Amino acid sequence: MGIHSVITFRCADGPGIVHAISGAIVAVHGNISDSQQYSSPDTGMFFMRVQVDSDASQDDLAAALAPVQARFDAHLTIDTQGRPARTLVLVSTAPHVLNALLSAQRAGAVPIEVPLVLGNHPDLADMARFYGVGFELVPTPDAPAKAAFEARVREVVREHDIELVVLARYMQIISPQLCADLAGRMINIHHSFLPGFKGANPYRQAHERGVKLIGATAHFVTADLDEGPIIEQSVVRVNHTKSVEELRQLGADAESVTLTHAVRLFAEHRILLDGIRTVIFD
Amino acid sequence: MGIHSVITFRCADGPGIVHAISGAIVAVHGNISDSQQYSSPDTGMFFMRVQVDSDASQDDLAAALAPVQARFDAHLTIDTQGRPARTLVLVSTAPHVLNALLSAQRAGAVPIEVPLVLGNHPDLADMARFYGVGFELVPTPDAPAKAAFEARVREVVREHDIELVVLARYMQIISPQLCADLAGRMINIHHSFLPGFKGANPYRQAHERGVKLIGATAHFVTADLDEGPIIEQSVVRVNHTKSVEELRQLGADAESVTLTHAVRLFAEHRILLDGIRTVIFD
Amino acid sequence: MGIHSVITFRCADGPGIVHAISGAIVAVHGNISDSQQYSSPDTGMFFMRVQVDSDASQDDLAAALAPVQARFDAHLTIDTQGRPARTLVLVSTAPHVLNALLSAQRAGAVPIEVPLVLGNHPDLADMARFYGVGFELVPTPDAPAKAAFEARVREVVREHDIELVVLARYMQIISPQLCADLAGRMINIHHSFLPGFKGANPYRQAHERGVKLIGATAHFVTADLDEGPIIEQSVVRVNHTKSVEELRQLGADAESVTLTHAVRLFAEHRILLDGIRTVIFD
Amino acid sequence: MGIHSVITFRCADGPGIVHAISGAIVAVHGNISDSQQYSSPDTGMFFMRVQVDSDASQDDLAAALAPVQARFDAHLTIDTQGRPARTLVLVSTAPHVLNALLSAQRAGAVPIEVPLVLGNHPDLADMARFYGVGFELVPTPDAPAKAAFEARVREVVREHDIELVVLARYMQIISPQLCADLAGRMINIHHSFLPGFKGANPYRQAHERGVKLIGATAHFVTADLDEGPIIEQSVVRVNHTKSVEELRQLGADAESVTLTHAVRLFAEHRILLDGIRTVIFD
Repeated sequence: MGIHSVITFRCADGPGIVHAISGAIVAVHGNISDSQQYSSPDTGMFFMRVQVDSDASQDDLAAALAPVQARFDAHLTIDTQGRPARTLVLVSTAPHVLNALLSAQRAGAVPIEVPLVLGNHPDLADMARFYGVGFELVPTPDAPAKAAFEARVREVVREHDIELVVLARYMQIISPQLCADLAGRMINIHHSFLPGFKGANPYRQAHERGVKLIGATAHFVTADLDEGPIIEQSVVRVNHTKSVEELRQLGADAESVTLTHAVRLFAEHRILLDGIRTVIFD
Repeated sequence: MGIHSVITFRCADGPGIVHAISGAIVAVHGNISDSQQYSSPDTGMFFMRVQVDSDASQDDLAAALAPVQARFDAHLTIDTQGRPARTLVLVSTAPHVLNALLSAQRAGAVPIEVPLVLGNHPDLADMARFYGVGFELVPTPDAPAKAAFEARVREVVREHDIELVVLARYMQIISPQLCADLAGRMINIHHSFLPGFKGANPYRQAHERGVKLIGATAHFVTADLDEGPIIEQSVVRVNHTKSVEELRQLGADAESVTLTHAVRLFAEHRILLDGIRTVIFD
Repeated sequence: MGIHSVITFRCADGPGIVHAISGAIVAVHGNISDSQQYSSPDTGMFFMRVQVDSDASQDDLAAALAPVQARFDAHLTIDTQGRPARTLVLVSTAPHVLNALLSAQRAGAVPIEVPLVLGNHPDLADMARFYGVGFELVPTPDAPAKAAFEARVREVVREHDIELVVLARYMQIISPQLCADLAGRMINIHHSFLPGFKGANPYRQAHERGVKLIGATAHFVTADLDEGPIIEQSVVRVNHTKSVEELRQLGADAESVTLTHAVRLFAEHRILLDGIRTVIFD
Repeated sequence: MGIHSVITFRCADGPGIVHAISGAIVAVHGNISDSQQYSSPDTGMFFMRVQVDSDASQDDLAAALAPVQARFDAHLTIDTQGRPARTLVLVSTAPHVLNALLSAQRAGAVPIEVPLVLGNHPDLADMARFYGVGFELVPTPDAPAKAAFEARVREVVREHDIELVVLARYMQIISPQLCADLAGRMINIHHSFLPGFKGANPYRQAHERGVKLIGATAHFVTADLDEGPIIEQSVVRVNHTKSVEELRQLGADAESVTLTHAVRLFAEHRILLDGIRTVIFD
């Protein structure tokens, strides 16, 4: 069967949802190749992700699902499996996360296309060029310049129909308004395991406190700094011999792996929001 | 809704299965609280596990599902969520796995009931008693005694309607006939990460070879020694300073955790067989 | 060589320390079978742990080391390798950590002897008895009773020459005075990965926040609640489907493993204090 | 103190070695900032790695250590801490390991300098150029060409005084003679957890067998294919849904991390050979 679609469906929980969705799929002679669902006891919401193979067009599938969506007042998405998500990457000077993301993209491991990398420092222009990706510099020395940077983000999002904005160690705070406008589609990598050490230098604090594990957290960006819904976390074992610099290096590896993994989950429509939590269908 | 059921369904893949199953659930006014499915590209089989909450009886649910089972020539099970699986545990002298399993059972973490522990050595009688579980000694000094042990296993399976036989470091080879008779419901813990070192003393080999990770594998028992379908595996990091004895101790911890996890998966109907592989709905 | 000793040495860092220590060992014809050292850039302190095999008595070894200790104004300990550390365990009602600790002790994996388990609830008397360990109940319904409990702890420490006090999910806050008196030899298991969620129900918070990893931290007890030097930490991967109760169960496993590991490190003289950090020679 | 040296010392075990080495260090007014040692019960060998800070020259340090080396008939190395190891990288077409290694080098996380990448395919010339590293193509279509490739390896090793040869997914078997000539300084990344599946397509075998963990092993190259001393291993958790291609991708990540870690250990003189095992001072 020629067309491979991925459907996500979110609505208030109740009987008959799965039957209605699968009925719509049967109606277009579709076959379900993968399906996951979850009912949240906390919020009373129902979540589903379905992969469908069918000879019918996606328009036909959408038409079949439309009454189901209406009946359950659902949030529905239909996409082609493996279609690259249009992604804007924001960077400052640290190269490790951008390198991990673009090399994974090139290797076919993360289905994204990156029309542009936007940096407030020129350092990563070379790396973007190596991967054949456009780079644009918008410095942010002061408040008006920061506003200009965000204005440029909005423009790029519009012009390139951007679906996902990735903060790949972009070291500026995003304004509450932009956080709100890009809610649920802007991902940050936090250089700590959350909940974690607050403040500017978590690796120094981790060193001083003598922790035995350090980590990284990928999360959606909200106006509440570092309190957005968590997508993925990972840790690395350390010991007393590690300097602050060595912790930073080990943390950088964790950041690269964790953010790349989170971006793949997003691009494959595997993340659904359940209030301040994420439902991950991996 | 008063009755919580768990359904497993396995058949040749094809369109309409999910719709038919969910239709049967709708017919008894059931609500799906959890559902996972998988279509195997290797074998062309379809696997599903569904948790259903309903006010209808399990007999009504079974009646509604019967035509679906017939239509797809499926293997179907229906059980009450959380019902303890009747489990026979076979042991020799090593206490760690039995202790882990019974303490997890007592803590409510593994839904099993253990009418009997059968040992070919008396060493673990005390431990069984501590947990309020019967213990029976059937020594196995020679071939006839081994046959008698297996005969006793068959009797206990019959008398107590045993659903799962667990080899908790039971140190005798099971006859091919008993392996065949208990196929898919006898679980062993292998004292190595598989594929791994063959032979009697894997920890010595691991030490001599200087491996940096050791592990344990829980698998279904088949006549092909240590080649049965893998259920769960885990590893522990080690280094050159570890003696064979210390590796054995670390391996013992991995065995305890891994087997206990595998037994929980079985008791919760989360393991489905796909040829020589397992599909795990966790 | 008949006598196996373990030496720890802590002093202000400077040239010649290792040479002086090794000279003392050579003087009693000792052989160093294992040695680890660390110089802390943070505190300027030197730390060393040495295992020595010798035919000389431990008194002779001590005599040879005495001038080295004096010269560097060092904190020195000499003990017999593998000698069980006299350990008092404090418990309330949760059985998992006590069970893990005593079964590891019985298996020879943790060199401790436990003359007494002291509980403020009767629940774990049976378990102590099963492992052949004394149990004493001192309820703590009010402030005077809590003071009596701590008074009994002090008595037991004196009478049994206790070296280590383990809080195996003992659910009372220890008074600042007892924390101070047992500084560096009272270990707690914290039911969270630190730094972590504050307050009474971290698993509920972890669930609500949708974290992807939960963990446990073993640390020395100080008057600063949960801020004592960290000995060992571990994490377990979780997802959105886990209820608060399931998180608690997974956390319990992490607690058992982590505390048992920390107690072994202590009993083998592998933990040295470097201000608010630990140096672990594992 | 201006000069930071790292010493490794390997000899038959016996009393007085540490004292003699530390005496030589004291003689040049050196301070030991880090030291690790190990006595192998298997081979009776003694291993030590010491970091020394001193105002004396490395020649003075060598002169002080010379009689100690002679007395114990030891293998001794003295190097400057952090000096980049001259490294030749061999590649074929897979980019992930080379990218991980060179980006870690650029980030300062792995102290190597790479005068040349030698490939039997042209695919990675661009990547080498991006990192400012020379690339040379020597195709290997047949046996004479393979011999020419190895001849070129020998030349480069001589001309550039190469200390370490890294096989970064170089897909040709190395001749026994070259293995022997570069024994202990040629590192390979094996695309499996060892001992593991033999043969050409381990990920297919891992998929067919339904393993729950896959991994990677970095090891020294010996004529015994994949049987050389193990340096580092890592694993990744997988499940039944992963295709052979997805296993390959996850395996690629494990390979990158594991080889990069192994190269750092080598460059920092942290790997000592104990027969067919490695002693790792990390």
